Amino acid sequence: MLNKNVEVFMACEKEAHEADIVLFGAPFDSTTSYRPGTRFGSSAIRRESYGIECYSPYQDKDLEDTKVMDCGDLELCFGNTKKALAQIEEQAKEILDNSAIPFMLGGEHLVTLGAFRAVLEKYPDIHIIHFDAHADLREEYLGEQLSHASVIRRCWDLVGDGRIYQFGIRSGDREEFYWAKEHVTMRKFDFEGLEEVLEKLEGKPIYFTLDLDVLDPSVFPGTGTPEPGGVTFDALRKAAEKVCSRANVVACDVNELSPHYDPSGISTAAACKIVREMLLALSK
Amino acid sequence: MLNKNVEVFMACEKEAHEADIVLFGAPFDSTTSYRPGTRFGSSAIRRESYGIECYSPYQDKDLEDTKVMDCGDLELCFGNTKKALAQIEEQAKEILDNSAIPFMLGGEHLVTLGAFRAVLEKYPDIHIIHFDAHADLREEYLGEQLSHASVIRRCWDLVGDGRIYQFGIRSGDREEFYWAKEHVTMRKFDFEGLEEVLEKLEGKPIYFTLDLDVLDPSVFPGTGTPEPGGVTFDALRKAAEKVCSRANVVACDVNELSPHYDPSGISTAAACKIVREMLLALSK
Amino acid sequence: MLNKNVEVFMACEKEAHEADIVLFGAPFDSTTSYRPGTRFGSSAIRRESYGIECYSPYQDKDLEDTKVMDCGDLELCFGNTKKALAQIEEQAKEILDNSAIPFMLGGEHLVTLGAFRAVLEKYPDIHIIHFDAHADLREEYLGEQLSHASVIRRCWDLVGDGRIYQFGIRSGDREEFYWAKEHVTMRKFDFEGLEEVLEKLEGKPIYFTLDLDVLDPSVFPGTGTPEPGGVTFDALRKAAEKVCSRANVVACDVNELSPHYDPSGISTAAACKIVREMLLALSK
Amino acid sequence: MLNKNVEVFMACEKEAHEADIVLFGAPFDSTTSYRPGTRFGSSAIRRESYGIECYSPYQDKDLEDTKVMDCGDLELCFGNTKKALAQIEEQAKEILDNSAIPFMLGGEHLVTLGAFRAVLEKYPDIHIIHFDAHADLREEYLGEQLSHASVIRRCWDLVGDGRIYQFGIRSGDREEFYWAKEHVTMRKFDFEGLEEVLEKLEGKPIYFTLDLDVLDPSVFPGTGTPEPGGVTFDALRKAAEKVCSRANVVACDVNELSPHYDPSGISTAAACKIVREMLLALSK
Amino acid sequence: MLNKNVEVFMACEKEAHEADIVLFGAPFDSTTSYRPGTRFGSSAIRRESYGIECYSPYQDKDLEDTKVMDCGDLELCFGNTKKALAQIEEQAKEILDNSAIPFMLGGEHLVTLGAFRAVLEKYPDIHIIHFDAHADLREEYLGEQLSHASVIRRCWDLVGDGRIYQFGIRSGDREEFYWAKEHVTMRKFDFEGLEEVLEKLEGKPIYFTLDLDVLDPSVFPGTGTPEPGGVTFDALRKAAEKVCSRANVVACDVNELSPHYDPSGISTAAACKIVREMLLALSK
Amino acid sequence: MLNKNVEVFMACEKEAHEADIVLFGAPFDSTTSYRPGTRFGSSAIRRESYGIECYSPYQDKDLEDTKVMDCGDLELCFGNTKKALAQIEEQAKEILDNSAIPFMLGGEHLVTLGAFRAVLEKYPDIHIIHFDAHADLREEYLGEQLSHASVIRRCWDLVGDGRIYQFGIRSGDREEFYWAKEHVTMRKFDFEGLEEVLEKLEGKPIYFTLDLDVLDPSVFPGTGTPEPGGVTFDALRKAAEKVCSRANVVACDVNELSPHYDPSGISTAAACKIVREMLLALSK
Repeated sequence: MLNKNVEVFMACEKEAHEADIVLFGAPFDSTTSYRPGTRFGSSAIRRESYGIECYSPYQDKDLEDTKVMDCGDLELCFGNTKKALAQIEEQAKEILDNSAIPFMLGGEHLVTLGAFRAVLEKYPDIHIIHFDAHADLREEYLGEQLSHASVIRRCWDLVGDGRIYQFGIRSGDREEFYWAKEHVTMRKFDFEGLEEVLEKLEGKPIYFTLDLDVLDPSVFPGTGTPEPGGVTFDALRKAAEKVCSRANVVACDVNELSPHYDPSGISTAAACKIVREMLLALSK
Repeated sequence: MLNKNVEVFMACEKEAHEADIVLFGAPFDSTTSYRPGTRFGSSAIRRESYGIECYSPYQDKDLEDTKVMDCGDLELCFGNTKKALAQIEEQAKEILDNSAIPFMLGGEHLVTLGAFRAVLEKYPDIHIIHFDAHADLREEYLGEQLSHASVIRRCWDLVGDGRIYQFGIRSGDREEFYWAKEHVTMRKFDFEGLEEVLEKLEGKPIYFTLDLDVLDPSVFPGTGTPEPGGVTFDALRKAAEKVCSRANVVACDVNELSPHYDPSGISTAAACKIVREMLLALSK
Repeated sequence: MLNKNVEVFMACEKEAHEADIVLFGAPFDSTTSYRPGTRFGSSAIRRESYGIECYSPYQDKDLEDTKVMDCGDLELCFGNTKKALAQIEEQAKEILDNSAIPFMLGGEHLVTLGAFRAVLEKYPDIHIIHFDAHADLREEYLGEQLSHASVIRRCWDLVGDGRIYQFGIRSGDREEFYWAKEHVTMRKFDFEGLEEVLEKLEGKPIYFTLDLDVLDPSVFPGTGTPEPGGVTFDALRKAAEKVCSRANVVACDVNELSPHYDPSGISTAAACKIVREMLLALSK
Repeated sequence: MLNKNVEVFMACEKEAHEADIVLFGAPFDSTTSYRPGTRFGSSAIRRESYGIECYSPYQDKDLEDTKVMDCGDLELCFGNTKKALAQIEEQAKEILDNSAIPFMLGGEHLVTLGAFRAVLEKYPDIHIIHFDAHADLREEYLGEQLSHASVIRRCWDLVGDGRIYQFGIRSGDREEFYWAKEHVTMRKFDFEGLEEVLEKLEGKPIYFTLDLDVLDPSVFPGTGTPEPGGVTFDALRKAAEKVCSRANVVACDVNELSPHYDPSGISTAAACKIVREMLLALSK
Repeated sequence: MLNKNVEVFMACEKEAHEADIVLFGAPFDSTTSYRPGTRFGSSAIRRESYGIECYSPYQDKDLEDTKVMDCGDLELCFGNTKKALAQIEEQAKEILDNSAIPFMLGGEHLVTLGAFRAVLEKYPDIHIIHFDAHADLREEYLGEQLSHASVIRRCWDLVGDGRIYQFGIRSGDREEFYWAKEHVTMRKFDFEGLEEVLEKLEGKPIYFTLDLDVLDPSVFPGTGTPEPGGVTFDALRKAAEKVCSRANVVACDVNELSPHYDPSGISTAAACKIVREMLLALSK
Repeated sequence: MLNKNVEVFMACEKEAHEADIVLFGAPFDSTTSYRPGTRFGSSAIRRESYGIECYSPYQDKDLEDTKVMDCGDLELCFGNTKKALAQIEEQAKEILDNSAIPFMLGGEHLVTLGAFRAVLEKYPDIHIIHFDAHADLREEYLGEQLSHASVIRRCWDLVGDGRIYQFGIRSGDREEFYWAKEHVTMRKFDFEGLEEVLEKLEGKPIYFTLDLDVLDPSVFPGTGTPEPGGVTFDALRKAAEKVCSRANVVACDVNELSPHYDPSGISTAAACKIVREMLLALSK
């Protein structure tokens, strides 16, 4: 029988009513200040997922046993940030209404704000766990408040002090690092203290946002703003698995893959494997 | 409503029962002798088709008005040529049984043999129009009869003299050029004489096979075996449109795009535009 | 003596009070819908200009004899289109107030709108000569009116019918081509008729906007949306020289170079040479 | 005096009768399922070997003091797996008949099967030490038994349980990992336990097969199927030296370099250096 | 039988005493002022020659029937221009002493000077036919007389007025173009007048030096200094064949391929095909 | 106000009389024996510095608070090594005369010799701390004494035994390693013992020369001669900071970035971040 072509992240073939996790892409990069191209991230992850396996020897689990749907990429309006964020918010809301976990693939990091607004509405007590090379805590960037460089600050605007836990941060301007001391919990350079944070947040609804540039550029060269001195793949894999398996993650995202800057494809492979491990850890 | 991700060549969204042309990909390159990678051709064409428009100012026609289905790529077995050709033959047969024109996207040129066998079964009087840089008339290549370099010779095995018309040929070994004089009609270097051939073949069922390396490598660098001195994009566009609009094309293919060798993407864009022009010209 | 590093387009070393042409870069690409990266265009043109010569054997003229200043790239806000256009408008205004010709290097084509607004204020009788592969006449694109795909339509909003002359157009949706028949003068595919247009516009102030993707992608692969079937380098060189030497060009721009998509650098070289020829032809 | 061009791995200039190790290339990748291109591996290793030195500060030894011949690449038939494997087997047999150690440079991993068959004939008690990211233990892949993904399983078909020792494995489908528990000795993720295995196998003839993708993709991006989370260069260097200097290695291979996916050339450099260290350690 | 690896330009397998043409590479680029890398040109041409065929349908001739030896690349000292030129001169002399035609593959264009000095010694009445984008007639470049940008001027130093015929020149500084009017015969932009020059030079010994950047960068992007607006591949092929078949060419060179700047490989393919056509035309 | 374009390393905007550190580029690579291209290193570092931040969370310091001037790249003569070294020496001398620290950005490593000669004149008691993958201690290379592979040996010619301290060395020919035992202090592979050396050299004037290829190629692929098995980014960052903050560094250089070999840009980012950390540590 002849069927129209369906393309999904490997083994994520469930229909909406069966799914407890729903993947979707947010291909947006209009506020990227250095090198654009993360708009190609979500489709690259979907397409190249077939280069790795469904089975994880780390967790001894298989994607074939999970209930994940992949509804593809949103069609976002480049150059109009507000409209794009509204579209993302609506998509996340629909998935939450479907009683599933929204799992967003960026796009630049600003897309988190759209999904987070939908999640906050459903879970007013939401907390954020944030892995990143960059603090993303600027009040504004080049005169603009809606920027990839201020996305976590915008989330803070919505939830205030004590809700945000950052790990792996190794870049920002002086003000961000000083401001962070007062308003968020920031662990510089690595994941030390993650266990304690997870214990403390036990049971609380968590939005887990993962900027892949927390990885060292040697492992993940395909990103807009490579920042030398990052964590290893195994360090991230373990930390991400820990968050997804132990915390009450109600929504998450993986962003900042810019595949055109990496002709070898190792960045996309790293992204695919992290997504696989997160999907498996989220599937209880 | 949440739906699984569907990815098709732009505007080719028909279901099987509505379609009079059916696109499918044959991502195979195991016999490629120089640089492999055409396996990525069909998916690149599908994905990058969104970089051009549905409307053709050359023909003043729009893909929105056509009846084309895209059923995606076959999953072919690399390293087992016979099995792969059998899978392709079966797919072409199913489309023909559906009363539609099979429009195959390669893959290396050998894939033509699979589709051609299905077409020959339905149209014993089939003729071939072949655009290519290479003659593809070798009796064998490195001891192997099933090779991209001998695909037209294998078609000739099935239909004999007087059925094959070649255009644009500018490369081959001495034997191929000498053998061609006896058994096929070969136009070297360009498309001169195409009009006369189309007149002569009027009404006959035609298999149109287009190896994109007939184009000059400046226009189409992303191919396995670039051969300098080819035709311009406009020359190919006009010739391909002519074949598709005037001849009784009952099946066709476009092959030999190897997108990884062209980081600029102009080769994929050229392939997409030729496919669009052919689809429009075939849609009467 | 130790001096701070100055980097300008080759031989464009004049100070503001000496210059009759002023180059500036508008590194903006936030509305680009397909592949971003034109933000790197203007700096690449400046940097790589040293790969060609100051002297033109076509015009027998030398940049050493011209009066051009290069004041570098604007620092534009990505993701906020209105703000970016306002900054560009202000810069063009300042150059016009300095009695010089603003020569803007893009960036995506939307930057034209900012400069054009400044020019229109000074020259209410301004006419536009537009070279491009794409019509850029959409009323909106993905729900957005300020888009690279609608920039000429936005200019038309400001000046109305009879002021816009397009050449080389080979892509657009059906509506653009039909709308164009009523409102602008569009020459498809090439520069035929340019002489007549120049005669007709003699003495009128002209804004000359050149989207480099009017070139064939083989000559100019480094662009966001390569459109096969374009004009040759020599055809463009001659046409651009003709406009700049014969018409009363009061402002101009050259845009849509996206250098990262062309590792060979031939696109940047083509852009540099066109800019050189335009500067020489404008210097009377 | 004018001599024909000879190109060998640096300092491997011995004639057949002088050599105790013979290098040869097996440029084959027809069964590669993800990204082909390892056919270019062996010639890249040969050519780029001149970028590193003959002397190893790790072992304080110099290739100038070894007895190695390099007889270049086989001319293999793409698309006919059985024929290619037979050619490889014959070449390995000839080297063994010459009382030298065959040192094969792939190509994809399936080439191991050809060489292994020749070695098994001479050394019925042969054991395999296998470094790899992938288990390569599938019974079949896409319906095909002769596949890069099942090469070690095919070797097992010939020797049975207790002869195969795997290290560094971090990818495979569930069945492979479960099957491995019964039939081979598999160390996941790293080289722990290698010392014990070498002790246990003391004196036994060893076929050492090294799939370079056991390395982390950051170190070795130029491969068909990059699998994040691999070993460091120094870990591999030490382990490979250990095997070659302590075990009774009677044949070996190094495979899966796909140089076109790594424009920086660091993958080829890594391959060259590993080959140098192995040659030095094998030369007692 | 096991033999050391030999790598030659396809079908150029003759020994010294049989050859009437001898290929050699001069991998030198130390004076290159813009982008280095032509040092990789000659080995790329040799290696990639297997991507095209031995047979030319243009000339109906086959390399199998010629008597060509390939003695590989010289090992030149980077950074010491004089020493490198002396090595080249010696190699050319040895070939001439062997009664064969030296056919040098560059490297940057300065290598011509070394070979030309050897040829001039044997043929005091030598004339030069020079195809190039650049005039190469500077008295000095950045204070240096031995530069790729002054190589033809250095040849003129040795032979004086009336011996040098240039074609295709489209770049240089003003002084070069003015100086040329007095001292050499320069045809700008194309090959017009080549017939007349060949008639005039009938019987005279000719050194034919071909800088491949005379080609348009679309056809030949892989070069140090791409200069837009060049000739087509067919124009060059015809002109080069004409020179080699009609003139008394006693030595020649083909230079300025810089393969790393062209990941698609079309530049190397163009170089290979031009070399093939020249070898065939030289073989009478 | 319209100003000419100024391009400096981020935040290094001081004038000559204010500066206590002066950056300059030495874009020279003529003696590079493997892959040229370091000539593009210094300008890439300057341009891409804007991809990282002025503030260092490692040192809690900001470039905004330092006194650094950037006077751009020297215009060096390619192919004439002696002349180029003399130009570099002169520039370093001028900076020293200005009572500032010369901070040179290469270029290949040989540029160190030029700057070192100027420094030695002012500080006869100068000592060298040298980080590198390669020993650079050859007496000559391909018959040439002025080579990147012998630069430290040439420095030794000027200062003799006991003045040179090398770290991280993992490549060289046998003679270099044996010679080193007699004449310099060489630490192989890593930075162990750096503390002791710094203590011993306390108060002595230090020339700190940093060849970035001491980094592992995974972190720094963009270099002429990638040598697998290097140090991590953090290891280098800490060691370089230690030298700059504790030793009496009177001049320094950072060299061997070859950006074209790394399309991802991670090598340039690593270079920028090391330069930032060094500038901050030097600014007391």
